[in-house]
Amino acid sequence: MKQNIIQPKVLKGFRDYPPSIMQPRRDMIRRLEDCFVSFGFLPIDTPALEYSEILLGKGSEETDKQMYRFLDNGERDVALRFDLTIPLARFAAMNVSELGTPFRRYHIAPVWRAEKPQKGRFREFVQCDFDIIGTTSLLADVEVVSVIHSALQSLGVKHRIRVNNRKLLNGLLDSLSLADRSGEVLRAIDKIDKLGLDVVREELLQVTGHDQDKTQALLSFISLRENKDSAAVLAHLKNLAGNHPLQIQGIAELEYLFATLPAASEFCDLDVSIARGLDYYTGLVFETSLVDLPQIGSICSGGRYDNLASLYTKQSLPGVGASIGLDRLIAALDELGQLGNHKSAAAIYIAFAEHSAEIHHYGFALAQRLRQQSVSVETASQEGKLGAQLKYADKRNIPLAAIIGSDEVASQTVTVKNLGSGEQQQKVSIENLLLLLK
Amino acid sequence: MKQNIIQPKVLKGFRDYPPSIMQPRRDMIRRLEDCFVSFGFLPIDTPALEYSEILLGKGSEETDKQMYRFLDNGERDVALRFDLTIPLARFAAMNVSELGTPFRRYHIAPVWRAEKPQKGRFREFVQCDFDIIGTTSLLADVEVVSVIHSALQSLGVKHRIRVNNRKLLNGLLDSLSLADRSGEVLRAIDKIDKLGLDVVREELLQVTGHDQDKTQALLSFISLRENKDSAAVLAHLKNLAGNHPLQIQGIAELEYLFATLPAASEFCDLDVSIARGLDYYTGLVFETSLVDLPQIGSICSGGRYDNLASLYTKQSLPGVGASIGLDRLIAALDELGQLGNHKSAAAIYIAFAEHSAEIHHYGFALAQRLRQQSVSVETASQEGKLGAQLKYADKRNIPLAAIIGSDEVASQTVTVKNLGSGEQQQKVSIENLLLLLK
Repeated sequence: MKQNIIQPKVLKGFRDYPPSIMQPRRDMIRRLEDCFVSFGFLPIDTPALEYSEILLGKGSEETDKQMYRFLDNGERDVALRFDLTIPLARFAAMNVSELGTPFRRYHIAPVWRAEKPQKGRFREFVQCDFDIIGTTSLLADVEVVSVIHSALQSLGVKHRIRVNNRKLLNGLLDSLSLADRSGEVLRAIDKIDKLGLDVVREELLQVTGHDQDKTQALLSFISLRENKDSAAVLAHLKNLAGNHPLQIQGIAELEYLFATLPAASEFCDLDVSIARGLDYYTGLVFETSLVDLPQIGSICSGGRYDNLASLYTKQSLPGVGASIGLDRLIAALDELGQLGNHKSAAAIYIAFAEHSAEIHHYGFALAQRLRQQSVSVETASQEGKLGAQLKYADKRNIPLAAIIGSDEVASQTVTVKNLGSGEQQQKVSIENLLLLLK
Repeated sequence: MKQNIIQPKVLKGFRDYPPSIMQPRRDMIRRLEDCFVSFGFLPIDTPALEYSEILLGKGSEETDKQMYRFLDNGERDVALRFDLTIPLARFAAMNVSELGTPFRRYHIAPVWRAEKPQKGRFREFVQCDFDIIGTTSLLADVEVVSVIHSALQSLGVKHRIRVNNRKLLNGLLDSLSLADRSGEVLRAIDKIDKLGLDVVREELLQVTGHDQDKTQALLSFISLRENKDSAAVLAHLKNLAGNHPLQIQGIAELEYLFATLPAASEFCDLDVSIARGLDYYTGLVFETSLVDLPQIGSICSGGRYDNLASLYTKQSLPGVGASIGLDRLIAALDELGQLGNHKSAAAIYIAFAEHSAEIHHYGFALAQRLRQQSVSVETASQEGKLGAQLKYADKRNIPLAAIIGSDEVASQTVTVKNLGSGEQQQKVSIENLLLLLK
């Protein structure tokens, strides 16, 4: 029977995840989960597929175009989620009365966007979101910033969190009669890190209708970012004459944050140019950069919003939250050589010098005993010669081999070989093997 | 600005995953991963979306119909994976030369099937597969059965693994000149647990063209399942005259399995009626039932196959593997009341008797200190009155509250209240709080 071979391939913009990606991802997810749990956050998930009307029109026109949207077998108009925020809003609208508020949740899951593939950008990637919903209290703002710091600390990642408050810019825009153009202004300011001040000035001139005074007022304000002393910037802002009421409130909120956040100065800076282009933020906004690789941009961003789920419920759901770009962070740590060594899964390999059911049983029983002592063990999965077995173990970066033949079975021992050093092998009792592995 | 509310809903056959599902799922996945790692298995993942031609025609006609298949924005014919076996085959065809064999991998991920929704059956569910590929050795068979036992033990699940060898039935079919109908015969025999012997007899009569002798030969063979003594059944099979060479080989393989698998009799039975309808199994096959809930059927099944990826590569990739239906297992444990208590994420709640930046800072700093001692802490996320804060904590099943006001800040203490017992509260130093929590 002749069979045609189907060319094996993955879709453009997608990729397989071999152990070299999955081991660090698994370990990072565990550390993040442990951190979230230590702050009382609970895990949720939502379906990958949603009705398209749930997802459409809440993101930008761009995300609408990037959706994987289709008719299912029942002619339902469905799409794959492109973020975890809209599913949270839909989930909250349906479940929050049962779950109660304030509700602390985290959500680690893949999302899909048919973006133009670029180096390091894929059409499927894992996001990691955490939010406290159902509260307007600044207590929740402080807690979310603490979680970010603690999460990145637990990953051993050197970072700075740059915070700002939307009320500062919104107050300024209102006093400049630019409140109706706030989206455009915020998105222009957002570009300062990537494209520089000249591009921002050019865009602001366009938005203000070439009003030099207004453009200058905005540029003067965001130039405060150059002062790296958060307390000094706050003091300066407070002393400005003619502050808008919104600005006064924004300053007070930032003062509260810096006063209550433990060890704030060690990891947190005020940066008045942080805008976060999305319309729904209303108070605290923040971005997080890697100290050793600032050029990759923010690896954790978010802020406070007044109403999460207004599209789906009349119930007001204010909250504050953040999103870690997990795959981006993994790529960055890989670039920095900080992913750690994940090549070997097992601490010891059990090889057979001879083959019989009795010898194999001895090996399997030994493996079981070692695993009960929390030692990870790989047993040979191919008969073959001893040399080939040891070569395999060495290729898998397993440091030790326990070799078993009829001699070892008779004397209830194993022959231990250090595969890395090539040291001379030695015969030891099972008890001594256990000691050796400790 | 009036806005129309979009009715929030999830797709038919899908569901949200609140903390009551996600906490046990997370904890079970961790235990399973730890078990796989202790056997030297490495994690992989593959994209949720694949080219349809990769997925089509490898499963059954039924799975083809159940696929979520569509044209993406680039007019590519794509589909969501409906199992983890075909993605493994495609992955192996592309990556196995780099990864080397034998290759032990596990894969825990959602799959999608547009099945008719039923109680406990969803269109999105998590599967958990593990395989050793690139080896024909029985060593790998024993290892996979050991993994199943160890994995379910680590979940605290009482179970029996029922094993069989396809060669027994295939040899019998060949000697009855029924080899060309093996698929139909195997699928008929598969129904014995669910539908009973009479239905199987009826189907076998149809498949054999109402040949009473052949039907009786098959029924006599599978009636050996009634003997629960695996060693006796093996001895009986060995003593049958006129065994087919395939049967002789199957018996030898089963003898080897029972001789080498540590403590086999404690959890493993020979059941000659285990058929596993899928065509690709060639040797060992197995199913696993819950001792306390056998009627839900197998929660972990699999077997040995000669060639995993023949559709995608000319390289022969034999292997052996198993699949745990994770969501099904969670539902079963829930039914048995064995999921454990997962209601509370935090061990202690920090509440505020009064509100000021200084008092809040004291609370946040205390929370940080407790978390450094691995205590999970939720701080109040709403100002409000103390009573309301404590009521919230109690609703979240958090057992203890640490109450902070200006008195506590001044004396560097906290007031501890046991929320469950309503015991009288007591003021303690931070050091004593740490001792109390240990």
